[in-house]
Amino acid sequence: MKVRTDGGVRDLRAVWFDNGKVMMIDQRELPHKIVIAGFDDHKDVAEAIRNMTTRGAPSIGAAAAYAMCLASLSGADLDTASQEIKAARPTANDLFFAVDRMFSILKNGSDPVKAANDYADMIVDKCTKIGEHGSKLIRDGMTIMTHCNAGALATVDVGTALAPMRRAWADGKRFFVYASETRPRLQGMQLTAWELDQEGIDHAVIPDGASAYYMEKGVDMIITGADRITANGDFANKIGTFDKAIVAKRFGIPFYVAAPVSTFDFNTKTGKDIEIEQRSEKEVTEICGTRIAPKGSRALNPAFDVTPAELVTGFITENGILSPKDIRKVMINE
Amino acid sequence: MKVRTDGGVRDLRAVWFDNGKVMMIDQRELPHKIVIAGFDDHKDVAEAIRNMTTRGAPSIGAAAAYAMCLASLSGADLDTASQEIKAARPTANDLFFAVDRMFSILKNGSDPVKAANDYADMIVDKCTKIGEHGSKLIRDGMTIMTHCNAGALATVDVGTALAPMRRAWADGKRFFVYASETRPRLQGMQLTAWELDQEGIDHAVIPDGASAYYMEKGVDMIITGADRITANGDFANKIGTFDKAIVAKRFGIPFYVAAPVSTFDFNTKTGKDIEIEQRSEKEVTEICGTRIAPKGSRALNPAFDVTPAELVTGFITENGILSPKDIRKVMINE
Repeated sequence: MKVRTDGGVRDLRAVWFDNGKVMMIDQRELPHKIVIAGFDDHKDVAEAIRNMTTRGAPSIGAAAAYAMCLASLSGADLDTASQEIKAARPTANDLFFAVDRMFSILKNGSDPVKAANDYADMIVDKCTKIGEHGSKLIRDGMTIMTHCNAGALATVDVGTALAPMRRAWADGKRFFVYASETRPRLQGMQLTAWELDQEGIDHAVIPDGASAYYMEKGVDMIITGADRITANGDFANKIGTFDKAIVAKRFGIPFYVAAPVSTFDFNTKTGKDIEIEQRSEKEVTEICGTRIAPKGSRALNPAFDVTPAELVTGFITENGILSPKDIRKVMINE
Repeated sequence: MKVRTDGGVRDLRAVWFDNGKVMMIDQRELPHKIVIAGFDDHKDVAEAIRNMTTRGAPSIGAAAAYAMCLASLSGADLDTASQEIKAARPTANDLFFAVDRMFSILKNGSDPVKAANDYADMIVDKCTKIGEHGSKLIRDGMTIMTHCNAGALATVDVGTALAPMRRAWADGKRFFVYASETRPRLQGMQLTAWELDQEGIDHAVIPDGASAYYMEKGVDMIITGADRITANGDFANKIGTFDKAIVAKRFGIPFYVAAPVSTFDFNTKTGKDIEIEQRSEKEVTEICGTRIAPKGSRALNPAFDVTPAELVTGFITENGILSPKDIRKVMINE
């Protein structure tokens, strides 16, 4: 991704390996400061995953792969290191997947740096293909809405929902993006807007509740990411996605979900089977460390909602754009 | 409204007259501090309207009436005072209405304190009746959702959207309220939650984007206020209302709008004719005085959206509950 630094525009990944260290953009400092953190101990990388220096399931996976690489280079016990790294976050499947994959590769005596780089490159390659397929949907003059951050920061590079926009913009197409701010954690305002700004893509931040207002005025398509897509095409994504999909349906606006095939979970039949993480109410009641809500009021903070397949126009994957019906075919063929 | 102070529970209005002074709850200090401000000069009341010590169109109207009362008691020129008070806020129709009404009453030599108290009482009386009618819709065990603050703070006392809940709770009915936080100004989290907390009504604050999540889980009715209702039953209200109405329609959840008849504007045909105030983008990009959005990103901040009549189950007014079709009849009869 393009990052404008004092020394000019740099092409950076969210996580990478350089000179014996795992490097990452410290996402907690964005959008105001671009801080690059470097770690030479796998335990420090695990801590960086835990404290959200890096976030987004694929970026977490890559950081975990690089942490295993560090553990291997330092001669640490890989069994112990695996457990230490896996303990960093409770839910991200990519974390466990990346650690297990690196564990088995390293057991075979492969080069740890090459193995971890391959893992990160695989993610970026998928995102690049998502961008190629999805960019064909974008025409000059369009208005696009997105929610939360399914960008390069979350996926090592390129992004999922932002991949088609990044590619279309690079191809010279000109369009406008509404980035909904995404309360409570404001990833839309802090991260998506930052990525769009770095790329020079025309955009504006809107409150989440302004979706219907702007969709009625005219939005040509909506693209979000997904945290999990079930066998029937229902998908879980950041809270507020379901509201947007319902509103988009009313206005006949195409709703696309950009995600690699690895996000499809054919073992889960429908969205009803997805358990939703309930996060701390402080994320809602406190802003910048200041309590906003009355002392006597509690808040509810579901991290995700589930949007039913019928509201999805298509899934933009590295293998092309699939309708919800097509993914059922893919499942049957597997 | 009930207000819990160090000296016990007090029954306060948002604005009132006491011992030669206009008193008001300083709404800028809520929900953390209960500060009562007092003013004995009409210019200071105008400033309190301008700096939002009190807010909400009916409360602004009452404050303006009391300001005219102070002007009259002090022997100020009423023409000049009218202009000074009217200049406090640009858009609230109640402000101009209250000043003009007091001006003509005071010209006739009426008692200024009685005239201003009558004005405030008239508002509270309407809200009380809205509460009586609306509370009949509320049954034990219900779950209700509201948006923004259409409470006692905005209407001298009792409220509009909150009036049915206040009354039903006082009648011994027990129910649960989702107060959506209402970005960008967070009136739901700061004011509605505070009022519900003071009354002891069970509630929780939710992010605006969690509406569909909770409506799917089970909401029995939605009640909001309105800033303007046009001749065909479309209505303008705080940004985010339209999204909720669309989502409610999908789930078959009744959507009620509580407002006095004075909110109906039969001179405006449809919601398309309402001009929407665009407020400063800083309300979105800055929180607690800290810039959250990237420097290069702009934000859009429409204050209101317009919900079409077809999404409204009923208007709860002081004259009873009217369907959108009924208000057309009222208009024809006028």
